[in-house]
Amino acid sequence: MPVPTLLVLDADPLPRLGRLTGRARVVHADERTLAGLLPTADVLLVWDFASRAVRDAWPGGGPRPRWVHTASAGVDHLMCPELAGSDTVVTNARGIFDRPIAEYVAALVLAIAKDLPRTLDLQRQRTWRHREARRLAGTRACVVGSGPIGRTIARTLKALEVTPAVVGRVPRTGIHGPDDLDRLMSRADWVIAAAPLTEQTRGMFDARRFGVMQPSAHFINVGRGQLVVEDALVEALSKRWIAGAALDVFATEPLAPDSPLWRLPGLIVSPHMSGDTVGWRDELGNQFVELYERWAAGRPLVNVVDKKRGYVPGR
Amino acid sequence: MPVPTLLVLDADPLPRLGRLTGRARVVHADERTLAGLLPTADVLLVWDFASRAVRDAWPGGGPRPRWVHTASAGVDHLMCPELAGSDTVVTNARGIFDRPIAEYVAALVLAIAKDLPRTLDLQRQRTWRHREARRLAGTRACVVGSGPIGRTIARTLKALEVTPAVVGRVPRTGIHGPDDLDRLMSRADWVIAAAPLTEQTRGMFDARRFGVMQPSAHFINVGRGQLVVEDALVEALSKRWIAGAALDVFATEPLAPDSPLWRLPGLIVSPHMSGDTVGWRDELGNQFVELYERWAAGRPLVNVVDKKRGYVPGR
Repeated sequence: MPVPTLLVLDADPLPRLGRLTGRARVVHADERTLAGLLPTADVLLVWDFASRAVRDAWPGGGPRPRWVHTASAGVDHLMCPELAGSDTVVTNARGIFDRPIAEYVAALVLAIAKDLPRTLDLQRQRTWRHREARRLAGTRACVVGSGPIGRTIARTLKALEVTPAVVGRVPRTGIHGPDDLDRLMSRADWVIAAAPLTEQTRGMFDARRFGVMQPSAHFINVGRGQLVVEDALVEALSKRWIAGAALDVFATEPLAPDSPLWRLPGLIVSPHMSGDTVGWRDELGNQFVELYERWAAGRPLVNVVDKKRGYVPGR
Repeated sequence: MPVPTLLVLDADPLPRLGRLTGRARVVHADERTLAGLLPTADVLLVWDFASRAVRDAWPGGGPRPRWVHTASAGVDHLMCPELAGSDTVVTNARGIFDRPIAEYVAALVLAIAKDLPRTLDLQRQRTWRHREARRLAGTRACVVGSGPIGRTIARTLKALEVTPAVVGRVPRTGIHGPDDLDRLMSRADWVIAAAPLTEQTRGMFDARRFGVMQPSAHFINVGRGQLVVEDALVEALSKRWIAGAALDVFATEPLAPDSPLWRLPGLIVSPHMSGDTVGWRDELGNQFVELYERWAAGRPLVNVVDKKRGYVPGR
């Protein structure tokens, strides 16, 4: 059997694929060369979640990779009708980001409860001003997204004595369905977006949804920017429909220097880093290598994306 | 029996003591009037932990309160040889601050792990700069102080998958003794000071102790400022012996505007607020009223301070 060709898209620095030496012919592609190389590849590894190149270059027919892996939890950047309709298997980095993102959400929630951004402002002004913080224990969270990331967020908040409710596409044990969303959002102190970006979730956090939240509540997005109608969030914050928000993801990334979001009172902006902890690239590389070894041995892949739904179906 | 006289020191706003109407004659004192009023009082309620007035005014002999309650966890502000040697009972606000302070420590630890202060700096500059955060899970904490506050900090960190070790004055089940301190500090990612201020703990965090910490480690003080030799901490941070610190308490409070601590790289300064969450004054008032009802009924008080040691002895 010939050595399979593994096409790696947009990887700089390169993932550590040394374990595949002799077992894969590794070819690097960028947005410019991808379309020409795709028909030659058995496997495509998409390293940069921000790249839209696969959607543009995926061939409508003829030879193409039998397997596409993305080193990300979301697959919205590569899904297109041609790929969804093909027999190519798509896998994702399920599991790698769960704990880091849950910790990041806990950091945001605690920083807001303890008024830490204001403390840092006052420190810069050398000003001693005692304030009362809020107790996190006993508050309520509504976590939107019932995959491993959303469930790990809920578990982590629960460990901090927050009462979480998780909302998913389909109600099941311990998970609420979409019919409960408005009611849960209206009671929550923290609304946390951790859903995949699909046709059903795009723009789901709109003016009406911010309107049902409590004036004392906060909104946090660690999913995808397009889950949110950003203009509606700007309005909700400006008019004090909600007390504050923290966004790690944006409709357009990087966020433009002239975006109004940088300076909106009550809004914390971070650069899509919630899941990225020291060593994450090695973890993503190792996860891919293990999947490759399964694939090469003819064993079934794990973390297989339901291409119609746009995520790995839950247990 | 005549209605007892309850002297309340430095309470502005006043605690809610309405439940004691008819059962206590409430008299307010300030630093100026305290010495004259002390011989007339049965009970002294010290509301402001920052006041040193009791130490200065406590009578060497003659009539004096039979019971002193301080609406704080620490009793260092009121202890003096005359009070320690008298038969006056001292109680504290044990329990009220445990959970808020533990949450505050969790907020600091997570904010540091996730590089949140830098994120807020970059937001102010409208600058998108992705960085790698650190995973909190799997790190190690050394919590110095084995009272309810220290133990609640340890439990809260453990819920976040940090491995905590607690150090107290005397080794017992689950608590290390002072002999283990240097070794535990040298292995910790987070050293957290939550001990009472006593003659044994004053200045315990000195140049030598910062010297045993790892260069990647952080020091957090939510106990009392005088636990720390502040000049030694300035040196440790300036010379990068340790990676950073967060201080909520200081040798002199409020921190003077010209203190070098305000602008030390890697140091987060907050205004002694870690235990103070919305509603805390009511909780402190209710706790005192319950103690007062015990005392008036002749039942034994709880939260009784060992005046020689300077804290409520642990279970």
